[in-house]
Amino acid sequence: MNTQEHPQAGTSSLGPQDKVPAAGTPGAWPRQAAARRLPRGRVGQASRMSLLDTSKYSQGSVLGSVNPDLASERRTASFSVEKLTARLDGGAEQTRIRRAVVEAIESDPVFSRENQYFQSQNERYEAAVRKAVHLQRKMHEMGWTESGPELKYIYRALSGDVAFLLHRVFMRCISVLGSDEQIAKWIPPATQYRLIGSYAQTELGHGTYLQGLETTAVFDITTQEFILNTPKISAMKWWPGDMGRSATHAVVFAQLYVQGQCYGVHPFILQIRSLQDHSLCPGITAGDIGPKMNFEHTDNGYLMLQNVRVPRENMLNKFCEVQPDGTYIKRGSPKINYFTMTTVRISLISDEVILPLMKACTIAIRYSAVRRQSKLKPGEQEAKILDYQTQQEKLLPQLAAAYAFHFINKYLQELLNRGYREVQTKNFDNLPELHAFSSGFKALATQYCTSAVEICLRACGGHGYSLLSGLPSLYTKILASCIYEGENTILLLQTARFLIKCFSAASAGQPVPPSVIYLSVMKAGKCPAKNKLDFLSPDIYTEAYQHAAVRLVSSTAAKLQDLIQSGVKKHEAWNQCTVQLAQAAKAHCHYITVKNFAETVEKLETEAGIQKIMKHLCDLFALHGIFSNAGVFLHDGYLSGAQMDMVTASYLDLLAVIRKDAVPLVDAFDFTDKSLNSALGSYDGQVYQRLYEWAQKSPTNTQTNPAYERYLKPLLHNTLSKL
Amino acid sequence: MNTQEHPQAGTSSLGPQDKVPAAGTPGAWPRQAAARRLPRGRVGQASRMSLLDTSKYSQGSVLGSVNPDLASERRTASFSVEKLTARLDGGAEQTRIRRAVVEAIESDPVFSRENQYFQSQNERYEAAVRKAVHLQRKMHEMGWTESGPELKYIYRALSGDVAFLLHRVFMRCISVLGSDEQIAKWIPPATQYRLIGSYAQTELGHGTYLQGLETTAVFDITTQEFILNTPKISAMKWWPGDMGRSATHAVVFAQLYVQGQCYGVHPFILQIRSLQDHSLCPGITAGDIGPKMNFEHTDNGYLMLQNVRVPRENMLNKFCEVQPDGTYIKRGSPKINYFTMTTVRISLISDEVILPLMKACTIAIRYSAVRRQSKLKPGEQEAKILDYQTQQEKLLPQLAAAYAFHFINKYLQELLNRGYREVQTKNFDNLPELHAFSSGFKALATQYCTSAVEICLRACGGHGYSLLSGLPSLYTKILASCIYEGENTILLLQTARFLIKCFSAASAGQPVPPSVIYLSVMKAGKCPAKNKLDFLSPDIYTEAYQHAAVRLVSSTAAKLQDLIQSGVKKHEAWNQCTVQLAQAAKAHCHYITVKNFAETVEKLETEAGIQKIMKHLCDLFALHGIFSNAGVFLHDGYLSGAQMDMVTASYLDLLAVIRKDAVPLVDAFDFTDKSLNSALGSYDGQVYQRLYEWAQKSPTNTQTNPAYERYLKPLLHNTLSKL
Repeated sequence: MNTQEHPQAGTSSLGPQDKVPAAGTPGAWPRQAAARRLPRGRVGQASRMSLLDTSKYSQGSVLGSVNPDLASERRTASFSVEKLTARLDGGAEQTRIRRAVVEAIESDPVFSRENQYFQSQNERYEAAVRKAVHLQRKMHEMGWTESGPELKYIYRALSGDVAFLLHRVFMRCISVLGSDEQIAKWIPPATQYRLIGSYAQTELGHGTYLQGLETTAVFDITTQEFILNTPKISAMKWWPGDMGRSATHAVVFAQLYVQGQCYGVHPFILQIRSLQDHSLCPGITAGDIGPKMNFEHTDNGYLMLQNVRVPRENMLNKFCEVQPDGTYIKRGSPKINYFTMTTVRISLISDEVILPLMKACTIAIRYSAVRRQSKLKPGEQEAKILDYQTQQEKLLPQLAAAYAFHFINKYLQELLNRGYREVQTKNFDNLPELHAFSSGFKALATQYCTSAVEICLRACGGHGYSLLSGLPSLYTKILASCIYEGENTILLLQTARFLIKCFSAASAGQPVPPSVIYLSVMKAGKCPAKNKLDFLSPDIYTEAYQHAAVRLVSSTAAKLQDLIQSGVKKHEAWNQCTVQLAQAAKAHCHYITVKNFAETVEKLETEAGIQKIMKHLCDLFALHGIFSNAGVFLHDGYLSGAQMDMVTASYLDLLAVIRKDAVPLVDAFDFTDKSLNSALGSYDGQVYQRLYEWAQKSPTNTQTNPAYERYLKPLLHNTLSKL
Repeated sequence: MNTQEHPQAGTSSLGPQDKVPAAGTPGAWPRQAAARRLPRGRVGQASRMSLLDTSKYSQGSVLGSVNPDLASERRTASFSVEKLTARLDGGAEQTRIRRAVVEAIESDPVFSRENQYFQSQNERYEAAVRKAVHLQRKMHEMGWTESGPELKYIYRALSGDVAFLLHRVFMRCISVLGSDEQIAKWIPPATQYRLIGSYAQTELGHGTYLQGLETTAVFDITTQEFILNTPKISAMKWWPGDMGRSATHAVVFAQLYVQGQCYGVHPFILQIRSLQDHSLCPGITAGDIGPKMNFEHTDNGYLMLQNVRVPRENMLNKFCEVQPDGTYIKRGSPKINYFTMTTVRISLISDEVILPLMKACTIAIRYSAVRRQSKLKPGEQEAKILDYQTQQEKLLPQLAAAYAFHFINKYLQELLNRGYREVQTKNFDNLPELHAFSSGFKALATQYCTSAVEICLRACGGHGYSLLSGLPSLYTKILASCIYEGENTILLLQTARFLIKCFSAASAGQPVPPSVIYLSVMKAGKCPAKNKLDFLSPDIYTEAYQHAAVRLVSSTAAKLQDLIQSGVKKHEAWNQCTVQLAQAAKAHCHYITVKNFAETVEKLETEAGIQKIMKHLCDLFALHGIFSNAGVFLHDGYLSGAQMDMVTASYLDLLAVIRKDAVPLVDAFDFTDKSLNSALGSYDGQVYQRLYEWAQKSPTNTQTNPAYERYLKPLLHNTLSKL
């Protein structure tokens, strides 16, 4: 690899093989490498002509030519990467469309993310608005439409770095909750960006607990208006995206009061800024909530309302309405109000949770295949860190999880689409199950994938900690997913409430929804596995998960029952069980995820190579879960200690097997270098050169040292009036 | 609390108690509150005169007057907060000194961190240098000396936001590894800041594996110089603090070559920038490595060397030397080179790991006592989130961990001081144990406390995600501790190697160091606990931890042995056991931490109130560990499932007990508001008002909207040449 390999020598391994450079050997690589970043290609990068005269470099490799340590990983793939990519996309045609969108976006300099890691919050915000505005033009130019097949890839291609995302939620909310007249009035100007909308639900004092919202909307029968107020500081709207600096309008959630009666939370359309000069409307105070861990590009805002009046027609009234005489009419289940949340919740999981994990895996695994550190065998070359069992054990389960959540998310998406069609026809029967489902999965997926990204970050050591690795921004962004769209613990407890209810129903012989039928058939007994290979059977591990979920649900239901029977009040008993209830909900969702993965693998039988590696990943995902939560499976003896040793053995064996395909498995995610935006994760694996070159562009290098003249020089010259 | 309480009403709980505001009630609080931040006091804040006329506010509380929800928590403390603070400080006199230092630093505007969350990397760096320079003056002014009792509190009072920390490591390195002549030559000018030093060890291609460093120092006998080179891009020094933009000198670690022979890594003093004009010296290329997750104030740098010559005397030569004729002489164990690392490793744990966790606990617990969300009991006021079992289960174990690691760290510090004295007298006997110890503990403490801070952050929901909460910066900073000063997995494996060696020795009847004698007495059998109260006995749980550690060490030793006997090569067998070896090392360190906590509690018998609450925390720390790692204890039946249920019951019971003292327990950490720098964690608990006021100062509010004229206005006015 290097034309002038330098000897690796330590005090402990001196020997004749240690060549020594002559004193004064000229530095073998230039001090300020002039290498330019080459455009990247997915395949065939290595064969491109280099822009540089590499003969000057002992390094022998420049950006764009694939690091041999990465090239060798790709030669031994056990499956077709291209076919797996198509499978993940849902067909080769989808892959083609996606790549065309990505190519169109990434070749347009307006959408560049190149200097993003150096930008301030103001710069990030301005860039996001610029991109959002430019995107309208681009869509027109490309012939992309809001209903076209390209739409879902645009956001992905922009890596979410674009403004007006809440404008979309604003529109969706009106479309779902608004009457035909309201849709006709608001959607066309919104579509044409003659107004910019936001979605103002969360308050300074209230997040997930919507009933507690403190903003009020009082109906004034004399003027046929609603009067909106945020009567306390805690009632101030806080967090809505696009609201801090951009939005002219917002759907504002407020407690509806009519003639002294409170009817709970309802949505109202409100203008907050002038369409002429963007000044705040009367009675409105609004601004940006300041710096956050990520989302610098988004103007999350605050909003205070002081006697803001809107006409009666501004309450979204597809399902309920206040009539001119103050009569409150319901036209459907109030549960519909939750549907917008449920859809947003799930629609976010793909782009905001699973894709970031796939990116993190790509970066960390490629880096681990080129990073060499220490020796596995004395006297040999330093080993790729991916060859260490501990590194495999950090990264490969996360890779398996990325696949697992990709598949379960597809499944959920189907459920959701069906639910959406049902709600459109005012059929709300499946909403409770869908809500409980989406809640628990949102919690499990966000928590699992956030931890997984963090593991990827830590697994890259110091370089992972550099923003230039791309991992910190992936982590700080995915972390938010644990918080927004419903706090995870509360969501798990919603799932748990559903499970307990279904468990009781099942115990009483009543019918329960399909997803929880398993709760009615608690098979006692023990796992039948006799050796470590048995644990590679999906039946064996799926049943173990099922058993654990049933046990946790039933034992918590029993504890709840016991407490109540012993005289503890119901709400207090519930609170005393919540730690275990959350655990039970997680076990349920974990079980469903494992089961769905196994079923997905079974359906891949037409593609042998892909099925085989997916089976390995499914096994790994399942056994990792058992290994990491051993207590849950050992507790009642369903697994014995000896069986747990078998699980461990199979689990560790799988690491070595999957390791061989690790790079092809992340290549199949098919991220471009620009979308990864990582000095460690690029396709060519030239991590050191790229880190060095990117660092040159940092304002800490391009701007003069602000501290020298003022502080360092006087200090060193001892001219400070000190001591 | 509020003079004009607003009704809480949802659709589900309408009733006569629902008062309704009259339509058009004037907004009860001003739109742009003019409240200024009041200076904070630890105690008695509530009684201070407010600068504001509160009669204008329905809110009824302004910054500086303690939120009644927090005040009530303090009235019921079961122990003396002041006495516990003194105990944590190591005596009331230490508390007095610490507070004096904190007061002196925080009252000096140069050290202010007020706008830190809004600053760029360049601004943070400049501020850190300014503070470092000003600190010299301040120390003189206050009469503080480098050997005085105040020193250790200065860094704490600055929250680490100061430059030249690596300058200290530079000096310590010379003091430990340099000869008397070298110390005499370099330490005085360094002390007077006539030069600024850094410590250049880590390279782009090598971190923890020092033997792999690629920088070379070749002895040129003709000129009596060492010629230093970084012969490949991966050899470039990368990460050293203070080196990117400040340092004039560095201790550079390089492979020493003399007459064709490599002698391994040695330290050399190198000038890198001119003392006159700060320009880079000949052969030097250096700069800043760019943006990171945190440490924006530090100029972590890179350094390339091209035939840089230093005189023979610049190799630090207390323990080894190259004589003029090229003879290489050792004067002591080469292990001494590791001692600097070991000391740095442990010295960081207090300030960089435990204090941040204490701060995170303070912020999250105070916030949880004032945040009200949802209802525990229908019809009641919304509950403090700290009253939810799930919130307690998130935060209180982290609080217990903060105490546990504080105590074990004190113990380690004593061991280290003893070790330092021994090394001074060239007694290296205890170095292996000390090194193994410090490695494992560094890994356990950093990993545990990092996760704990993240839990605190997540437990604060959306507001925790705001930089203004203070939690994101605590998290991104403590995360680095998992990476620097030795990658954690590698450190755990060093501990594991020591444990396996000791286990073998013990099995063979040979003597082993005191800390691992327990490995020789594997008591078979089962835990004798009969009910949940038995698990509040330190003997019971300490023995459970001991048993688990012995089992993991012995079973992994057996697996290793089996593999080797079955013909697997030793290094490969080792690799195949590393996941379990790391687990064993962690179990060992966890055991020692629990044991030390229990022993510490026992010694507190003179202070009954404090001993009682510390006992609860110790129990919680221990039972949380068993609850969270249940599989380890259930595996061989040492604990039965029924006993695990007892553990769970006792664990959950403890949460409710400790919850009552949660706020006093964090008050005892005695952080000032300025040092917490958190809108959520201030002593007065006025979180919403503070979030709102701090957000006003953000550049996203103080600077005009950069996107309006350019993008938003043309978009809304439809003057873009689009569509």
